[in-house]
Amino acid sequence: MDLKDISYALDSLWVIIAAILVIAMQAGFALLEAGSTRMKNSGHVAGKQILSFGLVSLVFWAFGYAITFGDGNAFMGLHGWFVSGIHGGHSGDISFSPLDNGSIFLLFQTAFAAVSLAIAWGGFAERAKLVVYVTFGIIFSIIIYPIVGHWIWGGGWLAEMGMQDFAGSTVVHLTGAIAALIGTLLLGPRIGKFNKNKTPNVIPGHNQVYTVIGGIVLWIGWFGFNAGSTVSTADGFFGYVALTTNLAAAAGALAAMIMAKILGGKADISAMVNGVLAALVAITASCAFVEAWAAVVIGAIAGGVTYWTSIYFEKKGLDDPVYAFSVHGIAGIIGTLSTGFFASGRLVEYTGVGDKGLFYGGGFHQLGVQALGVIASGVFVAAISFVVLFILKKTIGLRVTPEEEISGLDISEHGTYGYPEHLDPQFMKVD
Amino acid sequence: MDLKDISYALDSLWVIIAAILVIAMQAGFALLEAGSTRMKNSGHVAGKQILSFGLVSLVFWAFGYAITFGDGNAFMGLHGWFVSGIHGGHSGDISFSPLDNGSIFLLFQTAFAAVSLAIAWGGFAERAKLVVYVTFGIIFSIIIYPIVGHWIWGGGWLAEMGMQDFAGSTVVHLTGAIAALIGTLLLGPRIGKFNKNKTPNVIPGHNQVYTVIGGIVLWIGWFGFNAGSTVSTADGFFGYVALTTNLAAAAGALAAMIMAKILGGKADISAMVNGVLAALVAITASCAFVEAWAAVVIGAIAGGVTYWTSIYFEKKGLDDPVYAFSVHGIAGIIGTLSTGFFASGRLVEYTGVGDKGLFYGGGFHQLGVQALGVIASGVFVAAISFVVLFILKKTIGLRVTPEEEISGLDISEHGTYGYPEHLDPQFMKVD
Amino acid sequence: MDLKDISYALDSLWVIIAAILVIAMQAGFALLEAGSTRMKNSGHVAGKQILSFGLVSLVFWAFGYAITFGDGNAFMGLHGWFVSGIHGGHSGDISFSPLDNGSIFLLFQTAFAAVSLAIAWGGFAERAKLVVYVTFGIIFSIIIYPIVGHWIWGGGWLAEMGMQDFAGSTVVHLTGAIAALIGTLLLGPRIGKFNKNKTPNVIPGHNQVYTVIGGIVLWIGWFGFNAGSTVSTADGFFGYVALTTNLAAAAGALAAMIMAKILGGKADISAMVNGVLAALVAITASCAFVEAWAAVVIGAIAGGVTYWTSIYFEKKGLDDPVYAFSVHGIAGIIGTLSTGFFASGRLVEYTGVGDKGLFYGGGFHQLGVQALGVIASGVFVAAISFVVLFILKKTIGLRVTPEEEISGLDISEHGTYGYPEHLDPQFMKVD
Repeated sequence: MDLKDISYALDSLWVIIAAILVIAMQAGFALLEAGSTRMKNSGHVAGKQILSFGLVSLVFWAFGYAITFGDGNAFMGLHGWFVSGIHGGHSGDISFSPLDNGSIFLLFQTAFAAVSLAIAWGGFAERAKLVVYVTFGIIFSIIIYPIVGHWIWGGGWLAEMGMQDFAGSTVVHLTGAIAALIGTLLLGPRIGKFNKNKTPNVIPGHNQVYTVIGGIVLWIGWFGFNAGSTVSTADGFFGYVALTTNLAAAAGALAAMIMAKILGGKADISAMVNGVLAALVAITASCAFVEAWAAVVIGAIAGGVTYWTSIYFEKKGLDDPVYAFSVHGIAGIIGTLSTGFFASGRLVEYTGVGDKGLFYGGGFHQLGVQALGVIASGVFVAAISFVVLFILKKTIGLRVTPEEEISGLDISEHGTYGYPEHLDPQFMKVD
Repeated sequence: MDLKDISYALDSLWVIIAAILVIAMQAGFALLEAGSTRMKNSGHVAGKQILSFGLVSLVFWAFGYAITFGDGNAFMGLHGWFVSGIHGGHSGDISFSPLDNGSIFLLFQTAFAAVSLAIAWGGFAERAKLVVYVTFGIIFSIIIYPIVGHWIWGGGWLAEMGMQDFAGSTVVHLTGAIAALIGTLLLGPRIGKFNKNKTPNVIPGHNQVYTVIGGIVLWIGWFGFNAGSTVSTADGFFGYVALTTNLAAAAGALAAMIMAKILGGKADISAMVNGVLAALVAITASCAFVEAWAAVVIGAIAGGVTYWTSIYFEKKGLDDPVYAFSVHGIAGIIGTLSTGFFASGRLVEYTGVGDKGLFYGGGFHQLGVQALGVIASGVFVAAISFVVLFILKKTIGLRVTPEEEISGLDISEHGTYGYPEHLDPQFMKVD
Repeated sequence: MDLKDISYALDSLWVIIAAILVIAMQAGFALLEAGSTRMKNSGHVAGKQILSFGLVSLVFWAFGYAITFGDGNAFMGLHGWFVSGIHGGHSGDISFSPLDNGSIFLLFQTAFAAVSLAIAWGGFAERAKLVVYVTFGIIFSIIIYPIVGHWIWGGGWLAEMGMQDFAGSTVVHLTGAIAALIGTLLLGPRIGKFNKNKTPNVIPGHNQVYTVIGGIVLWIGWFGFNAGSTVSTADGFFGYVALTTNLAAAAGALAAMIMAKILGGKADISAMVNGVLAALVAITASCAFVEAWAAVVIGAIAGGVTYWTSIYFEKKGLDDPVYAFSVHGIAGIIGTLSTGFFASGRLVEYTGVGDKGLFYGGGFHQLGVQALGVIASGVFVAAISFVVLFILKKTIGLRVTPEEEISGLDISEHGTYGYPEHLDPQFMKVD
């Protein structure tokens, strides 16, 4: 191997490690969501992560990657079905040798698409039919996610304008969160969530240990998500991105816990985990563009605000069981806009994307681009999601029957309880 | 460091990461098996993974590695006890510097041996004595696994014939599964599994969240298992192997779920997880020899067939608590034979092992070699396992007493319940 | 990139991977401790790991790193607050480019500081106030850990003397364990732990599956901890360190299980997990200085002794809920002293730290340095911890009220149960 081959191999190694870390986030989501929902739905909630990742792995390979990264127009890619013929592609830094043929970059991007779908499905939790998950998942992975991805990462119209979304606060998180929101609205609240006078009841998750471990797994996976998005080991810059990511998450944990203590009176564990995730979502766009101190500020704002919006939307009648819209949507917007304020000249120059932010003398230009990106992506995802889910609602129906919902999706959709020794009288006593 | 040193260090880095991923599969097996068995055996089932990995780590270092990879004859290696004197060995690609002395390759191979033993022990679940685990585990790690390994990977007679088993569908999975089958047959079914009229009862696992997380951890670990078996970063080929692995697993998940829905009426979560694992087992032999579309086909076949064989063997009176023989044995055979059909000329030429398959104009030659490898390995493992376990059965006995089995192995073998607050009246109420 | 850039990037990649592995140990501690304590405290016990890692990430970045690694005097570092101005620092092997600016080394070291605090907090489990955790955690991360770190790793007086503590048996584990011990002593035992006649009661952990998985996660994380401490891929030496680490852990598992069987009559699962951890703690100092056979000996001694000391200290009236002092303290001392006996000339020459041990003809010199390091660090940590915790005890109080302790910290400190469907009558029945 010559120097260039080794440099390619080294960057490839980093990207495949990052891909594995992002794929591991599926375990994080499974634990987080199963822990945050009820025992009677636990097998279903955890199991759908495998279904989700399986679906995306096939669909994104066949169609989604080509629409996201293939040559095409400002709206979508049109070449590279089944990842054939995308040699070199839009990521010149990692190895696209004849034997690799983009496999590593495809795996990395598949993992991102799967995170976005995991977020979207979060809004459907504890009441949607399995067939709705599958149908919407396929459409999401072929059309919704790849088109937003093409706009911002695949050389589309927002990329042309210099939108800064380094690892996907908008592409991945806001996209998933808007789909989750539309799902939540069309499905309606879970049985028992709201009283007749519209006040919400607490439906606590059944296992906070799962929730915490899920949060830690996601935190760790995010090093692949953000630092891996350098797709390069050059200049140790991936380490800098890992640092801003970590500082933001830490600030988000503390900010959420302090908010919970002040506003709610108790240092709520789930709120702290959501604060970490909101901070990570927010730093996802900005991790490569901001100074370390700014990462702390962005993480703290996202962690604190998310605690408040989670409660606010619930009071307003929205039953978003795992707070997908607050954690990934609101924080995704905060993160995408944050580079418009905090993008530092030195780092923007290095990454070569967009312009510096308001606080670094760049004026309102970059902030405007970021806002446009948020609005355009949000409206697009909302519109397509609404059309698809509305058609499904009017045809096959979105929701299981009330009887099925009350007995739980494990037994009604999958035929066995997730915890038979706790829930099924037949298996309850030790024999 | 010069170019060659760096190239060595880079490949070493990839192999140690792969080793860590494969070692992490121990956590996957612990979760999968504990989730798939009952609360009263949960501490035992999880804990024996640590015991298993501890045993293999010492025994394979001292003896197993030398028999597998040491110079010797076509049947077994005879040099390199305690890994001394194996400089360079059979893997010329990674660093065997005086200071490393094969440590990284040893760790990687130790992790494979430990996976094979974990599979074998799966067949003993919920009824075997701890002393049987330990005794059989030592013999398995010194004689059974290393000799099959030497035949196929260590320059033995099947390697000479060009057998294609890239990461061990036969070496690791079939070997473990045949041992599990013999164990299952000699132990007999668990108390309560079969009625007097020989119809089977369901003994559901106690925690599907564990089962799902275990499945995801294994999926992730398999990137190390298969892609790591390149022991090289050259040409990005490890990325290609990771891709075929992932596509197969995804296809296996969907195929198993569809089969469960069609044949069983419900989209069973455990069946989907087993479909993923069966697909991964099958692609393990073929991951470096087949095109991406073929990986999807192989994964789907393995995932679908395994659902059916799991039910079939149970109906025939076999109580294999975690379906070790179906998931690792049947799928191991499917995978090993698959290269005889699907091995693509382009990839066989690159890897330099064996011949192209039937569908690529290679005729029946490679298929014959693969079939011979399956039969020879299967018969060898079955024979030695039978002899060892039969002697143990006639001397110390394989199985705990009925009283111990009914009260559970946690309390009878280890002295405490895995879940004392659920199972022990003394600790049940919150004090 | 030229050869030197690539070499830097390669080492940086290894160190960031190692950092991620060590950060993953937080999930290991969360599972291990939650599994080893009661259901009513499970959310609290798991959740405090996120709080701990968040705190350390911010505090160590701002102050701790400068005190540990900044230029200063033999007692402490005094430069590099917020990691500014530490270009090159004490670790010349990994990339400190202007764009990285030490980020990767900072992340790696942050992960170590967080492990030390996790150990310290282990001694406070199930009875300390949340505000005590936070207050003590901040002081620990600014003063206690960094000063010991500076003495041994940051060019301080013990480093000058040639103390061998490769990855921190003393710096990380003994420091954390002494703080845990002081906490345990000042807090006093949990309600119900001791009878009036001073005999101890068993308070079993609520979930051995968590304990086992936590143990495996820590074992895996330790590859980053020890092998990552090479901060280099040169000569494959990181692989050798990984091997000694693995052999020691394996020996520790078996030694502890045998001790439990002989002394306690049952092959206790938690004891085996603690044996693994004790062995890993002990090999942490010596992993780069000893031969493979010595690693087995050191691991076996630590694993066996820890079983005995865990029981001994409990009989003497110490209620250390997760055995932090035995597992990390006693084993930390064993490990630190072990290089004084086993340090092999060949490896000491390669690492360039200290002298060879007693068994290799080095006489008592190195053993004396090691003993001095243990005593000085232990006394320093004990003194500061005592002063801080004594002041806290006399002002805000260390311990929750008996009512809060009996109802559990989840409900009393955080407002919700970790397992509401198991513990809260309101959510117990399936609705």
